[in-house]
Amino acid sequence: VIVTVTLNVALDVTYPVPTLEVGGSHVVGTPHARAGGKGVNVARVLHQHGCPVLATGLVGGPTGADVRDDLAAAGVAHDFAEVAGPSRRTVTVVAADSGDATAFNEPGPEVSAAEWGAFVRHLESLLAEASVVVLSGSLPGVPVYAYRELTRLAQRHGTAVVLDATQVALLAALEAGPDIVKPNASELAATTGLTSPVEGAGQLRDRGARAVVASLGVDGLLAHTPDGLWRASIPERLAGNPTGAGDACVAALAAGIAEGWAWPQRLRTAVAWSAAAVVAPHAGTVDPDTRDRVHDHILVEEIHAADVHR
Amino acid sequence: VIVTVTLNVALDVTYPVPTLEVGGSHVVGTPHARAGGKGVNVARVLHQHGCPVLATGLVGGPTGADVRDDLAAAGVAHDFAEVAGPSRRTVTVVAADSGDATAFNEPGPEVSAAEWGAFVRHLESLLAEASVVVLSGSLPGVPVYAYRELTRLAQRHGTAVVLDATQVALLAALEAGPDIVKPNASELAATTGLTSPVEGAGQLRDRGARAVVASLGVDGLLAHTPDGLWRASIPERLAGNPTGAGDACVAALAAGIAEGWAWPQRLRTAVAWSAAAVVAPHAGTVDPDTRDRVHDHILVEEIHAADVHR
Repeated sequence: VIVTVTLNVALDVTYPVPTLEVGGSHVVGTPHARAGGKGVNVARVLHQHGCPVLATGLVGGPTGADVRDDLAAAGVAHDFAEVAGPSRRTVTVVAADSGDATAFNEPGPEVSAAEWGAFVRHLESLLAEASVVVLSGSLPGVPVYAYRELTRLAQRHGTAVVLDATQVALLAALEAGPDIVKPNASELAATTGLTSPVEGAGQLRDRGARAVVASLGVDGLLAHTPDGLWRASIPERLAGNPTGAGDACVAALAAGIAEGWAWPQRLRTAVAWSAAAVVAPHAGTVDPDTRDRVHDHILVEEIHAADVHR
Repeated sequence: VIVTVTLNVALDVTYPVPTLEVGGSHVVGTPHARAGGKGVNVARVLHQHGCPVLATGLVGGPTGADVRDDLAAAGVAHDFAEVAGPSRRTVTVVAADSGDATAFNEPGPEVSAAEWGAFVRHLESLLAEASVVVLSGSLPGVPVYAYRELTRLAQRHGTAVVLDATQVALLAALEAGPDIVKPNASELAATTGLTSPVEGAGQLRDRGARAVVASLGVDGLLAHTPDGLWRASIPERLAGNPTGAGDACVAALAAGIAEGWAWPQRLRTAVAWSAAAVVAPHAGTVDPDTRDRVHDHILVEEIHAADVHR
């Protein structure tokens, strides 16, 4: 089973408004609420594709109960640890006139040392059955080295780690040697100070990551791995909501480890699922028609050392 | 006791952001949550002034539980009826750079006919002890004649009614003859189609209201009553948040009935509390220093028939 860890789950609430007026007062349409957080979205995509998956992480309060209820309704297996602080909400205001989505993300609960220790033991009990663990998304009030600790825990149990984190949480985890880290272009540049994705990915590997898959938006994916360097992309632009494309990519990379796919197949699948997530209405969903249509058009090319600086 | 009815209670959540960027993604500061809804704010102001008050209305779901908990923490007596649908939240985004407050108000739950009937019986059980009932704020999914039904119920028990409602909910209630209705200038104009507040207030009385107190912003209050016409105003402008000034005014009008004050005293108190609510940081709070400082400077003047059209 693939275990996804979401330390900072969210209830993602969408407020439809006819138009967004700064300083105004809006009566919103019927709000739509959905369990979210990056690891939850990864679990949804894996579940949609029939991959055995278990969502875990920290939940608290009534918002946490709503998250569990929504996952149960979606049929996604989950086993979260409870914390006293309430899980966060995100509010996204979608304006009908402009199409603009304006997001407000609460920071998430404080987590006590005892709660954190209990979660580490809870995760350990799940790792015996896990081939891959996905560590994804922002941290609530837990130590910034949280992902490093969980990466080391997984390694002690022979479980592969796919990490999607940013800034200090990413940097702190690198030295533990996660199997794959997946920054996007701006995260990679911000973390490394390098504008070249190939050089940035190489630096993250130098700092400990075994492989780096950088998502470069319309330029597709760059994979910097012990087996070689690849680029994978799609010769068309898809319109839609890019939120959730990164989570679909992470889901494919985790499935690839679990299924023992070679890198070109992992990358082809990751590009197809990401592109199909852009078309889907919500994060955590992949549009099956788009996925199947684009699959055979994806270009996966190996980059050789001499070409890196071209 | 003064009973305040809030059919559409809210958990009022404030999101502080450094700046509000339409189409952007914001990590908000620690959200502040507070029980709200106009009747709840009225109850808070009365409680602050030592007036015996009981807050009632409809609450549901975890948000309703948060509303009750917050009122309990504030020491405000309350006895709500439970409904199956969850109480609404309002989200106000406050931008530090511009000071703009941008509000998003959820519509509120649907209420079944059985739940509505149960609430009417619940309110009836509270009216035996009530001198005044305040009906205030928007309606959730209940019939638009809800305030008319509650006004008639109060009258059968000899309880005075102060009504703060808008549009169809206000118009439907007028024929039941509420003791005081409190529109603001724009509500009065929208409801009557008349630009003159004196004429608009007169029309609402013709339609059934016993007295009308219109809040005219910086121009103060206009009272159109069986005992005469008055204007009450304050010879200074106060800077702050006007949200909640109307609720402080309603609180003073209800206290005036309960205490048997003559109209000039009611209006003087209503202007003082409203002005002091503008200065206070949250709706439902009156700044005591401002209230006491402005009280003796308030002008209350009776308008005579010959002067109405001046």
